[in-house]
Amino acid sequence: MIYLDNAATTYPKPEKVIETINYHLRNLGGSTGRGHYQWALEISRKVYAVRTKVAQLLSIDDPLRVIFTYNSTYAINMVLKGLLKPGDRVILSSMEHNAVVRPLRSLEKKGVELVFIPCGPEGVIDLETLRNEARLGARLITVLGASNVSGTIQPLAEIGKIAHDNNILFLVDGAQLAGLERIEVDNWHIDAFAFTGHKGLYGPQGTGGVALSSRLARLLEPLIEGGTGSLSEEEYQPDFLPDKFESGTLNSAGIIGLGAGVDFLLEKGISSVVSHERKLRDFLIEKLVREKNINLFGPLDSQKTTGILSFNIKNKDISTITNILDRDYGIMVRAGLHCSPLAHKSLGSFPIGTIRCSFSLFNTQDEVLFFSKSLNEILRRG
Amino acid sequence: MIYLDNAATTYPKPEKVIETINYHLRNLGGSTGRGHYQWALEISRKVYAVRTKVAQLLSIDDPLRVIFTYNSTYAINMVLKGLLKPGDRVILSSMEHNAVVRPLRSLEKKGVELVFIPCGPEGVIDLETLRNEARLGARLITVLGASNVSGTIQPLAEIGKIAHDNNILFLVDGAQLAGLERIEVDNWHIDAFAFTGHKGLYGPQGTGGVALSSRLARLLEPLIEGGTGSLSEEEYQPDFLPDKFESGTLNSAGIIGLGAGVDFLLEKGISSVVSHERKLRDFLIEKLVREKNINLFGPLDSQKTTGILSFNIKNKDISTITNILDRDYGIMVRAGLHCSPLAHKSLGSFPIGTIRCSFSLFNTQDEVLFFSKSLNEILRRG
Repeated sequence: MIYLDNAATTYPKPEKVIETINYHLRNLGGSTGRGHYQWALEISRKVYAVRTKVAQLLSIDDPLRVIFTYNSTYAINMVLKGLLKPGDRVILSSMEHNAVVRPLRSLEKKGVELVFIPCGPEGVIDLETLRNEARLGARLITVLGASNVSGTIQPLAEIGKIAHDNNILFLVDGAQLAGLERIEVDNWHIDAFAFTGHKGLYGPQGTGGVALSSRLARLLEPLIEGGTGSLSEEEYQPDFLPDKFESGTLNSAGIIGLGAGVDFLLEKGISSVVSHERKLRDFLIEKLVREKNINLFGPLDSQKTTGILSFNIKNKDISTITNILDRDYGIMVRAGLHCSPLAHKSLGSFPIGTIRCSFSLFNTQDEVLFFSKSLNEILRRG
Repeated sequence: MIYLDNAATTYPKPEKVIETINYHLRNLGGSTGRGHYQWALEISRKVYAVRTKVAQLLSIDDPLRVIFTYNSTYAINMVLKGLLKPGDRVILSSMEHNAVVRPLRSLEKKGVELVFIPCGPEGVIDLETLRNEARLGARLITVLGASNVSGTIQPLAEIGKIAHDNNILFLVDGAQLAGLERIEVDNWHIDAFAFTGHKGLYGPQGTGGVALSSRLARLLEPLIEGGTGSLSEEEYQPDFLPDKFESGTLNSAGIIGLGAGVDFLLEKGISSVVSHERKLRDFLIEKLVREKNINLFGPLDSQKTTGILSFNIKNKDISTITNILDRDYGIMVRAGLHCSPLAHKSLGSFPIGTIRCSFSLFNTQDEVLFFSKSLNEILRRG
């Protein structure tokens, strides 16, 4: 079995992640932030340690500004819906995932104005247009840090500077970027960096969150309110971090497992992970360009991307091909629009979509070779 | 170690739950509803099977009306904030948890009217007052199915009839009830039954959800929008179930683990689980009433409750006592308000709060005996 859908969720998970979750489920009862008995305190300490690791990974100085959520979609909705009011203007790239587009389309119906910034054929945001629109004022700029379709990495530091210079808040959908690039949330003037736990951070599903600036943390109304284990005598939501934005029981085992994933990543080194993935991407491009009728989307230069490659094939139904790859060769890749119609419109692959290969540290060159040979065989079969 | 905080989260988890999660994390890559390769389809099938089990448990006919969320607090917020508009009137019991009270207090500031129905000394809602208020009209009645403080079970069928007769929607916070009573969501006219996965259903944290009536599912606006793996070409949220309310990657391993928890529960039989917990509660009451200066809160008759018992002690600091129980005897119980100031006001234990013992199927009479002896020793020590 060859798994090339790591942009959906990384597989396999590091052994240490599985063991950590297993240990937690077997040996520790209690919830983080609830109770003062030894297990509850141990869980609370461990969850706090994960906050610290994520803060380190994202270069923010205060772990309490790391908020844990169910997934990055939740984190993005929490920012958009907790912040935006009718009349607000939002600037977004034309590469956004539906995690951002769908809540914004919904807010648009309530009077929020959306301004889409075009992206070039490689999917990179047009900074000049962005700068001009930013000068006209806006409440928020929101950008997909790395595309889930083409892997394209956006120039976040430059975009952050534009946001900062124009006093606009800056949200980054970092679902595909965290773990694959050094991210400096504070230095790059990012007010909210949403991340997921189960992709580049090698944790389990059901984890993720957002790193907030102090400014945004004050402005933002919580989307979910409820028991926090703190100020238990109060019928109103606490206004301090992280409790303001973390109601109900957290996924302790998952978060602590995510911590083991971040440890794994930091041990390997982010730069060696992304460099491994880029080598595989380069290798695949080298094989694919020899095929007739293949259209590659996004940058050919893998230094501009994460380990994702999207393509489709002239006059071929891509779903049929991925079904054959799965059934006859045990190769798992995705065909379609990957929840990102806007990105495909930008890249020129709408409405057909693409076959998407996405790598993790665990993929090998042999697997990529087998994939390209199998694809070649299917195409020659006709 | 004696763990008596099962109302926070049950511990231990059944071996099968841990094994199921472990197997999933180790052997299956992919996300539910994303991709058509074999692992993705296997995950989707397994998650659907859990929907079916939960639907069976809650007596609803369509598994697609089971929505999975991060926890029950999220599910409750999704209903309250997706439904209520300024000017709406909401009737709630005076036993509610902050999972309901905090979002409602926030909505109150935006013009939602709150009507609190008093509860008697046992924590049971006053049906006559409820009936009178319901006749005046309301958008929603919301009731905590079983109290996390006293274990008190509310007469849901009767409340549902009142809601139905007055054309009012009915939300039940079932976090403490699911798995401990036969619940007939449709027959009892419940429009939303919020549940958590990691308490009476013996699943992991990071799971939970809500069973919706078709009527409410149509009315409700989604709180979180984003990628659903469906209608990938659309920039607007799908309006079918469960996708309308499930955006972003679901916690597949957790949900499938929850399925193993529900299996465990159904094998044991809900009635034998609750009867075991009630026996332990009765046994503890029998021991505690012999102690001087102990105040018990909630029903003395355990047939009216789940396996939760709350008490405090005249002139004693309950936190100090639970700390000693933990440190010197390895007994884990909770002291405080348990995120439910309103319930303590109803029961007469505000602002001191209570020591709460809460049982699961795994607790034994010997453990309860050891607890009562240890408490007795501490109290005699002075």
